[in-house]
Amino acid sequence: MVDVEATIPPVKGFRVAGIHAGLKKDNALDFMLLVTDRPCATGGIFTTNTVKAAPVLLSQRHLAAKAGEIRAVAINTASANAATGMAGLANAETVTKWVSEQAQIGAEQVLVMSTGVIGTHLPMEKLQAGVERAYQSLSPDGWSNAAQAIMTTDTRPKLASTTIFTSDGQYTIAGIAKGAGMIAPNMATMLSVIITDARMNPAQAQSLLTGAAQKSYNRIVVDGDTSTNDTVFLLASGASGVTLNSPTEMLQFQEALVAVCQKLAQDVVRDGEGATKFITIDVFNASSDEAAHKIANTIASSPLVKTAFFGNDANWGRIVAAAGRSGAAFDPDTAKLWISPGEELFEEDRGLLIFEAGTPTSYSEKEATGIISEETVYISLDCGAGQGQATVWTCDLSHDYVDINGSYRT
Amino acid sequence: MVDVEATIPPVKGFRVAGIHAGLKKDNALDFMLLVTDRPCATGGIFTTNTVKAAPVLLSQRHLAAKAGEIRAVAINTASANAATGMAGLANAETVTKWVSEQAQIGAEQVLVMSTGVIGTHLPMEKLQAGVERAYQSLSPDGWSNAAQAIMTTDTRPKLASTTIFTSDGQYTIAGIAKGAGMIAPNMATMLSVIITDARMNPAQAQSLLTGAAQKSYNRIVVDGDTSTNDTVFLLASGASGVTLNSPTEMLQFQEALVAVCQKLAQDVVRDGEGATKFITIDVFNASSDEAAHKIANTIASSPLVKTAFFGNDANWGRIVAAAGRSGAAFDPDTAKLWISPGEELFEEDRGLLIFEAGTPTSYSEKEATGIISEETVYISLDCGAGQGQATVWTCDLSHDYVDINGSYRT
Repeated sequence: MVDVEATIPPVKGFRVAGIHAGLKKDNALDFMLLVTDRPCATGGIFTTNTVKAAPVLLSQRHLAAKAGEIRAVAINTASANAATGMAGLANAETVTKWVSEQAQIGAEQVLVMSTGVIGTHLPMEKLQAGVERAYQSLSPDGWSNAAQAIMTTDTRPKLASTTIFTSDGQYTIAGIAKGAGMIAPNMATMLSVIITDARMNPAQAQSLLTGAAQKSYNRIVVDGDTSTNDTVFLLASGASGVTLNSPTEMLQFQEALVAVCQKLAQDVVRDGEGATKFITIDVFNASSDEAAHKIANTIASSPLVKTAFFGNDANWGRIVAAAGRSGAAFDPDTAKLWISPGEELFEEDRGLLIFEAGTPTSYSEKEATGIISEETVYISLDCGAGQGQATVWTCDLSHDYVDINGSYRT
Repeated sequence: MVDVEATIPPVKGFRVAGIHAGLKKDNALDFMLLVTDRPCATGGIFTTNTVKAAPVLLSQRHLAAKAGEIRAVAINTASANAATGMAGLANAETVTKWVSEQAQIGAEQVLVMSTGVIGTHLPMEKLQAGVERAYQSLSPDGWSNAAQAIMTTDTRPKLASTTIFTSDGQYTIAGIAKGAGMIAPNMATMLSVIITDARMNPAQAQSLLTGAAQKSYNRIVVDGDTSTNDTVFLLASGASGVTLNSPTEMLQFQEALVAVCQKLAQDVVRDGEGATKFITIDVFNASSDEAAHKIANTIASSPLVKTAFFGNDANWGRIVAAAGRSGAAFDPDTAKLWISPGEELFEEDRGLLIFEAGTPTSYSEKEATGIISEETVYISLDCGAGQGQATVWTCDLSHDYVDINGSYRT
């Protein structure tokens, strides 16, 4: 087990700031800047939406050119700089230029992210002053402000870190994330920056990040929508002096990275728009891992399942029906479904068996309602079809989700 | 244009009843029986969910055996008879036996549908008395009661009919439907019975129904869920004496059938759980019809799009973002998006152009909000990529949807 903290200590090679640049009202922090003291090996993953925001397109280009030499990441809220055409791309480029001037680095060494309303242009004047002010505020201790500065409808900042001790010394992996709405598998509106002072090359950074995302960011569902801006970076400064040489060291790093990413991804679900419950969906003995993932995702995305959770209704029929429409092989006659309170299983006890061999068991409705009324619920679905497994984390669908998204722009 | 009425006149060969069998409270009609005076050529389409309710499995079997000789359809509400195992299948079979005894026909000539809560068994005692009472109530004029008797969370009955005049005489196509929740493409929780006194063979009935469903029932989205019970039948009594011989006659029938099915499908959307708006999504110039359908469906299923409609927010960014994640080819740089009030275009005027060439136009936000605040909204999305077209009808996602589905079983 990796011990993950919800705070971030100073990490060698990184300074960060979160400031109010005037993009949001009420002096809320709204602009984040990360600057490294040396070139970082960097991996990135981006939205699979064919409508990609300008910062995504620009960061993809910069990363392709300078994956071994990234020096800064700038993130603004309020405007997603998506569907803004050539002007939007030029604006994103200008932001990287301003950062490069402050930090005395190349513009291509700067990555950018934006989040907020689609189709509005970046407020360039405010951002220019913001970049300067953020640069002056950089500090190894700025992570709490940084995490706050990337929030949109998030209600709380999301930070995670862990420190690994090796025979060569110690290194830290840390990250911040924002989420809230438009969260779906395959990179939802999730912005996240992960840093480490371990040493690796860009190809390692990319493959480690891709692998970790498969077990974290791509395993969460809030509403099934996928945004135009999703981006996660992993920057490795190498400043700890610890190098990932052996497969064992890579594996140890991977495990710790997954733990940090899972913590952040789960925090995104916990803070999903209007969420009142945190639900773990564990599908196993499916015909393949892909089938298990498809079934778990379909259950997690079903509005009928999500509203039943909101209503504290142990409506297993909707769960089974969602599994049946997932497109993956699923036979209710070989399936078993359990519900249990909590986020994890305790001693492999899956809780109350409510469905088996095509029909409900003679479970107590009162007991089931009691479990489903908890703030954390663990769903186990045994497909009885093979060895495939997937865990997906999701939340319920509440009145507040409708409120938040019915009036987001107003 | 086919003229479709919202009432059903007597149709030769058919008698129908909707009664209170004690399945619902407050004397609400809850059981429907249709009996024909001669064997009917019958087509059927069923849920694509791999979790199929007992009435679906049984009706598929009866239809395979007796597609040219169907004599009755029985529909109960309150219990879906899904996830009920062998006992559920035996119960469905017993219902067909009771109907066959009353009508003096074979049990395999009886089709059944059920709708309601998954996992509960049919209340057999009440149903036995109900079948008898319904049989005694059969009448050529019973359609209004029949349509009411199949409602679940529907707020109003759904009926449609049209009469076609040919050189050989006239025939009628008529149908009833229920919908409300769990409505998605590919047969949602949609139960519908269509009848006609035109003469055809079972293969014709099947192919005509399949074709019509593609343009109606499979083009509506309420919440993206697909139920365990979806079923539509087309029964042709032939009692009018009018035969569909020539391709022209087939085409004329097809057009009228599509019109009846579209009316019923659209009524299902209009009466979607918690729906406050009826939205037409017309995607054209896509790379193929399939791509257009995929794009239109993804827009129609997006919780972010649906909540924006509920909030009267002309959030075109969410529409474009949904198109981009549909999985179909979609390039925002060649796309155009219009919004217009109403259910249909008037003289090809697509209304207010709000997005073009990757960016929003300089449209008036006030004008856009005015349009989106209407009860009926027409969305036009030109993909600029080919010749593909698809129209999908949907509704918004409101507080009431959450209320209805958070407490459906309680």
